[in-house]
Amino acid sequence: MTALGTTRARHGSRTITDVDVVVCSPGRNYVTLRLGTTDGLVGWGDATLNGRELAVASYLRDHVAPLLLGKDASRIGDLWQYLYRGPYWRRGPVTMASISAVDQALWDLQGKAAGMPVFQLLGGRARERLMTYPHATGHSVEDAVASVAGRLEEGYAAVRVQASVPGLPSTYGVHVGDEAYEPAHTDLPDEEAWSTPLYLDFVPRLMKRVRDELGFGFALLHDGHHRLSPTEATWLGRELEPQRLFWLEDVTPAEDQRAFAPIKAGTTTPLAVGEVFNSIWDCQELISNRWIDYIRCATTHTGGITHMRRILDLADLHGVRSGCHGPSDVSPIGMAANVHLDVAIPNFGVQEFMGYPDAAAEVFTTSYRLVDGHLEVDDDVPGLGVEVDLEAAERYPYVRRYLPVNRRLDGSMHDW
Amino acid sequence: MTALGTTRARHGSRTITDVDVVVCSPGRNYVTLRLGTTDGLVGWGDATLNGRELAVASYLRDHVAPLLLGKDASRIGDLWQYLYRGPYWRRGPVTMASISAVDQALWDLQGKAAGMPVFQLLGGRARERLMTYPHATGHSVEDAVASVAGRLEEGYAAVRVQASVPGLPSTYGVHVGDEAYEPAHTDLPDEEAWSTPLYLDFVPRLMKRVRDELGFGFALLHDGHHRLSPTEATWLGRELEPQRLFWLEDVTPAEDQRAFAPIKAGTTTPLAVGEVFNSIWDCQELISNRWIDYIRCATTHTGGITHMRRILDLADLHGVRSGCHGPSDVSPIGMAANVHLDVAIPNFGVQEFMGYPDAAAEVFTTSYRLVDGHLEVDDDVPGLGVEVDLEAAERYPYVRRYLPVNRRLDGSMHDW
Amino acid sequence: MTALGTTRARHGSRTITDVDVVVCSPGRNYVTLRLGTTDGLVGWGDATLNGRELAVASYLRDHVAPLLLGKDASRIGDLWQYLYRGPYWRRGPVTMASISAVDQALWDLQGKAAGMPVFQLLGGRARERLMTYPHATGHSVEDAVASVAGRLEEGYAAVRVQASVPGLPSTYGVHVGDEAYEPAHTDLPDEEAWSTPLYLDFVPRLMKRVRDELGFGFALLHDGHHRLSPTEATWLGRELEPQRLFWLEDVTPAEDQRAFAPIKAGTTTPLAVGEVFNSIWDCQELISNRWIDYIRCATTHTGGITHMRRILDLADLHGVRSGCHGPSDVSPIGMAANVHLDVAIPNFGVQEFMGYPDAAAEVFTTSYRLVDGHLEVDDDVPGLGVEVDLEAAERYPYVRRYLPVNRRLDGSMHDW
Amino acid sequence: MTALGTTRARHGSRTITDVDVVVCSPGRNYVTLRLGTTDGLVGWGDATLNGRELAVASYLRDHVAPLLLGKDASRIGDLWQYLYRGPYWRRGPVTMASISAVDQALWDLQGKAAGMPVFQLLGGRARERLMTYPHATGHSVEDAVASVAGRLEEGYAAVRVQASVPGLPSTYGVHVGDEAYEPAHTDLPDEEAWSTPLYLDFVPRLMKRVRDELGFGFALLHDGHHRLSPTEATWLGRELEPQRLFWLEDVTPAEDQRAFAPIKAGTTTPLAVGEVFNSIWDCQELISNRWIDYIRCATTHTGGITHMRRILDLADLHGVRSGCHGPSDVSPIGMAANVHLDVAIPNFGVQEFMGYPDAAAEVFTTSYRLVDGHLEVDDDVPGLGVEVDLEAAERYPYVRRYLPVNRRLDGSMHDW
Repeated sequence: MTALGTTRARHGSRTITDVDVVVCSPGRNYVTLRLGTTDGLVGWGDATLNGRELAVASYLRDHVAPLLLGKDASRIGDLWQYLYRGPYWRRGPVTMASISAVDQALWDLQGKAAGMPVFQLLGGRARERLMTYPHATGHSVEDAVASVAGRLEEGYAAVRVQASVPGLPSTYGVHVGDEAYEPAHTDLPDEEAWSTPLYLDFVPRLMKRVRDELGFGFALLHDGHHRLSPTEATWLGRELEPQRLFWLEDVTPAEDQRAFAPIKAGTTTPLAVGEVFNSIWDCQELISNRWIDYIRCATTHTGGITHMRRILDLADLHGVRSGCHGPSDVSPIGMAANVHLDVAIPNFGVQEFMGYPDAAAEVFTTSYRLVDGHLEVDDDVPGLGVEVDLEAAERYPYVRRYLPVNRRLDGSMHDW
Repeated sequence: MTALGTTRARHGSRTITDVDVVVCSPGRNYVTLRLGTTDGLVGWGDATLNGRELAVASYLRDHVAPLLLGKDASRIGDLWQYLYRGPYWRRGPVTMASISAVDQALWDLQGKAAGMPVFQLLGGRARERLMTYPHATGHSVEDAVASVAGRLEEGYAAVRVQASVPGLPSTYGVHVGDEAYEPAHTDLPDEEAWSTPLYLDFVPRLMKRVRDELGFGFALLHDGHHRLSPTEATWLGRELEPQRLFWLEDVTPAEDQRAFAPIKAGTTTPLAVGEVFNSIWDCQELISNRWIDYIRCATTHTGGITHMRRILDLADLHGVRSGCHGPSDVSPIGMAANVHLDVAIPNFGVQEFMGYPDAAAEVFTTSYRLVDGHLEVDDDVPGLGVEVDLEAAERYPYVRRYLPVNRRLDGSMHDW
Repeated sequence: MTALGTTRARHGSRTITDVDVVVCSPGRNYVTLRLGTTDGLVGWGDATLNGRELAVASYLRDHVAPLLLGKDASRIGDLWQYLYRGPYWRRGPVTMASISAVDQALWDLQGKAAGMPVFQLLGGRARERLMTYPHATGHSVEDAVASVAGRLEEGYAAVRVQASVPGLPSTYGVHVGDEAYEPAHTDLPDEEAWSTPLYLDFVPRLMKRVRDELGFGFALLHDGHHRLSPTEATWLGRELEPQRLFWLEDVTPAEDQRAFAPIKAGTTTPLAVGEVFNSIWDCQELISNRWIDYIRCATTHTGGITHMRRILDLADLHGVRSGCHGPSDVSPIGMAANVHLDVAIPNFGVQEFMGYPDAAAEVFTTSYRLVDGHLEVDDDVPGLGVEVDLEAAERYPYVRRYLPVNRRLDGSMHDW
Repeated sequence: MTALGTTRARHGSRTITDVDVVVCSPGRNYVTLRLGTTDGLVGWGDATLNGRELAVASYLRDHVAPLLLGKDASRIGDLWQYLYRGPYWRRGPVTMASISAVDQALWDLQGKAAGMPVFQLLGGRARERLMTYPHATGHSVEDAVASVAGRLEEGYAAVRVQASVPGLPSTYGVHVGDEAYEPAHTDLPDEEAWSTPLYLDFVPRLMKRVRDELGFGFALLHDGHHRLSPTEATWLGRELEPQRLFWLEDVTPAEDQRAFAPIKAGTTTPLAVGEVFNSIWDCQELISNRWIDYIRCATTHTGGITHMRRILDLADLHGVRSGCHGPSDVSPIGMAANVHLDVAIPNFGVQEFMGYPDAAAEVFTTSYRLVDGHLEVDDDVPGLGVEVDLEAAERYPYVRRYLPVNRRLDGSMHDW
């Protein structure tokens, strides 16, 4: 059974009649919300929160679903406020991923009711295709350079590169052995080891080698993954200036937004951050003060299209561009939400895309696709354009998985 | 069966051997965490999140419990970092209430292992008893004044007063009919109506009447419950200056901390905020810029004693005092965590206390108590001093309950 | 006679019954406070203030001791406030060293009463061992490089290096002849000579040579000892950027905290400061504005564990790490206070450790030790874990000693 | 024997030959420094630190005296730097009171060597006499008003008024029974009780009554003694605006200088602060940001004339006037230092003067005197103009005395 409801039913009512939360694990875990309405339409939303899936599912099933039944599905903004202000306890990843799933499903329904892809409701198409970046990795500088070269041959105009830091047993973003890289792959968290000096010693050499071998004809990205102090981040940013990075990502933890002020003042390497944010208030100071260049939130984690659009609009006002978070832990539905926004906004920068496990394609069918290293989306599929095969989903039940944690060499916790 | 484990087992190890999450509803819902260790001690923590209890229970049971088994219970700070940084997705009410329960249980265990009440581990007793405020309400100004008078007769030195706003069918903080006020009392959210002009017209008259009738010999508090704009809040603050309030609470939504700057600049009525916060970053600017006078977080919602102490210390540095959130939706365990901090910190202001339903007393027995309108805590009960009767808890299974929502007279959502 | 009181006497009262101030000089001067309580426990604190020992001893003996007798030893925070606010005249090295000794002794007592090492009362162990840095020095660049190499062979992962500035008769941090370096070694202050141009000409060469010869595989530190202007400091910081220092210490006098703003804005070399501070207000702006990377206070000079923890917590909130002051003029008790904090806090950076004169080991026995260039502390010794042999102390009476002073080549005073 | 050395000995050398520290208690404790030089002159300085006298005496006798012997007494600035930078550990009340005594004695010597009163060396006389304020107090509003009236009859043009707060057993600044008010009068600290609401309820009524009864023809002052929060202080400042105070003193603790920003922004009542400061850095932000109107340091506690002049100069640059601290715990020598500065600076505001116990007049004879409520100083007495009778001093040995402490009604510490 394929559940996508594309029949327009303008004359029927738009009352929400059923709410289902599906947790499945086709290669990795996804939390999917299905809303059915009295006019027979079905809307889909993504609430995947890597490693905390069941808490989000409970939030939706136990606390949100009873609130949705009988509500008018066309009142997207009102329902957003109802779910954001209603519980009194606001913000945070579990809450905002839950709201996001509802919001995505409502926009999906609205598009289907209009017979239009969602981007048409967001103001229409602003570009033909999306510059997209994949991940290139390697256990050595040579491997990493080869990995980048392979990506460029595939047509990508932008590549993020990470490589094993010499002296450390494992490195963020680098696959183990020959497997595809998937951070959350263990039943209990892996404990990784970290040394800032070893990392700082290595990265400038890595990036210089990439540029030396492959030139400046593509956008080069790197992810610091929250592990540096502002001063260390500034040093790295300066050291990388000759390589003209497209961006340096997540250089320091961002709860304290003001920590980015000295980094921005100290280097011209463009700065990106945002995948850990859940609301506009998490990046309000970062954007309003222009301390960053790219905002990297995921639509799935920031309250959906309604709230993500506000973040992107605030960014545009301040000269900040988009770079939506898009690893495989955002489901194909959440990725569709990113893509529809990307296509419509004026300040698109780049879209991350890791691809999906093969099994995920059995469950999710999308109206966007990767063509020559760029994401494209169909003009004629209404809503978000994702079909979900619930029978396939049932074949892949939830499997407990954790992201790794990170410890410094003295045993104390560091940011992973 | 009463589960309190006070036997000291110094020579046994301190490894966590069992983790149980108990959701019960003795008069209202509570989420309770029980940690057992190899030395036979039992620690208790509170993760109650009013209206979203099962999501927190899932977060703890499905995602946190597997991480705790086998861990050293004495490494409180390390486990805090492990649970805060480990999941990658940080902050927010569900996450931080879950971490809080673990942290409270670990401090409870540490106190029991030391044979000391927790406040001794926090630097020892700094005061004999706690100024505590209850809620006084009324359907009319007369009723409200009488309610305040009754509270003063009970010995309270501080009273929060709310009364029905003429022209509105119901008002936040005011009981319905003759029942005790309990906001979350319905299977689906009540929809209340709101008019800022009616509210602003009424409150100065209410507060003036209270002072005119009862004088200035007690601390008078009022809660705006996030419903005013900064300008409206400033007007109200100024209008109330002759009544010399102890504080005016939650005058405007606080996600955008900077919204408090003009209010603080515009009125000398002391400002309190914080019950909706989950971390120090939610109030970092408010405190560091001295835009508020009292910080009102609940230990249960801000990552526990470890993190709450940091908030209170930052507050002290900036001349901000405590006013911990303490309605009946913080369980007696979470209230104990508040009380142990209150007793030890230099910058205590006041403690909110609503009391508990009778049934709650069957489940929870505490080493603190209300004496003449002031909370007092025993010196000789180790840990947080709360005993939990799990058999009694079983008699009161979870009941779905929601807080109300609030709509303006035109039907649009407002903050409740 | 060894005075450590580890017997627990839970049922006895915790009243302070005797207060003794011991000034001894086993290789160098120390001011030690001994508190005895009615339950037979003994707590020890360090109030050593290099070169001003007798004034601190008088402050404690003549003015503080009468206040402590009869007080409840478990009320650590209350006694801190009593000693801080009580005298009306606040802050400064003599006052805060005196308060520190009391606070250390009270935490020592609290740990012994709990049967736990103090770090357990601070949240428990967060790391296994402490990265520790010693001092390497030389009369020439070659000697200094050899000295660093020797330290690395001993297992240190971090080394501070100073060397004789060519053209100056003596240099801060460099031993005289073949003796171990001990700055306060004369009956009247040595007058040293200073030339900023000679210093600035030399240090970049020195540090480059160290990195050229020994590589980047260790943390390299240097101490400017307050002798540069902000502009000179910025120049030096930039010049040293290629050597990737762990930190550059005390580049300019810090009474005017804002003087660090332009330095931080002008260089990515990490900045450390703090050994001359006595309270959180001395570094409030430095930390809150993120103008430094490491805070270097000594627990002995900043009001003890109670206040030092506040400094370290404020630092953590702002991304600043610890580097507690730890030369031999902090007694082994004060060093224990540093170590217990270091073990427990999340934002530990590094610990300075010079070692102690042989005679000091006759007086003080500690539960921490240096193993392969890292400090380690026992898990099973209660309190701060330092035993004091008062008979041995009597064999080493106070000897007047001064730190040197510093004059520019024109005869005018400069910062030493 | 009277020790004043007024003989000019221009042709003799100016080497310091003897250093004596005298602690005496003629009615209250004083720490007096005596410097003798090879030309036979004697200089006097005041290092009194109320309640911590012996620690200052030790600092001077044990650590400073050996440094002074043999030094050239004319190098005042150089010796200031030597004593400030030399010990490495800077600032704070004990250190700065010690330096102050040396500095006062050196200026006294310099004046005597020149045959001029010190104010001549500071630029000469700028005014004929000093507006001076005494303390008026009362156990009731009526008594306080009468006390002010009495002061006005004595010729004072400025009066500070404090009165017993109804409901509190004792009040800062108000005499006990019929004795003259002397805060430090007990062998152990008195514990006073405090209630901010009672205080705030009372003071506006008190000040209004004073103005209603006695009019606006004199400068009216009040001292909050550090006991209010910034918001409470702002409220009080506003409430007192109709009474046009000369100043409102010490409204909030000032370690965190920025705490004065909102007070200054919120009221036009002039603000004074400074008696607890020890250096220019303690008030640098307060003055540079113009958050205060009067700077109230004591020359005795801020490193002497050399450093105090810098504070007053910085103040003048920013429109801030002087109001030197001058209760009886500054000795007649320290008061002389205040007076000589007051006479010479352009930005004099007012001078506090409590008078002295009768016994003090046996020890100290001054060249300044109170005439019709104004201090005047002779033109023809060299140096600071204070003679000290050491034999009389010997008749009044040190007596241990403490200032009171202050506890809130819940038993916790408050600022006294």
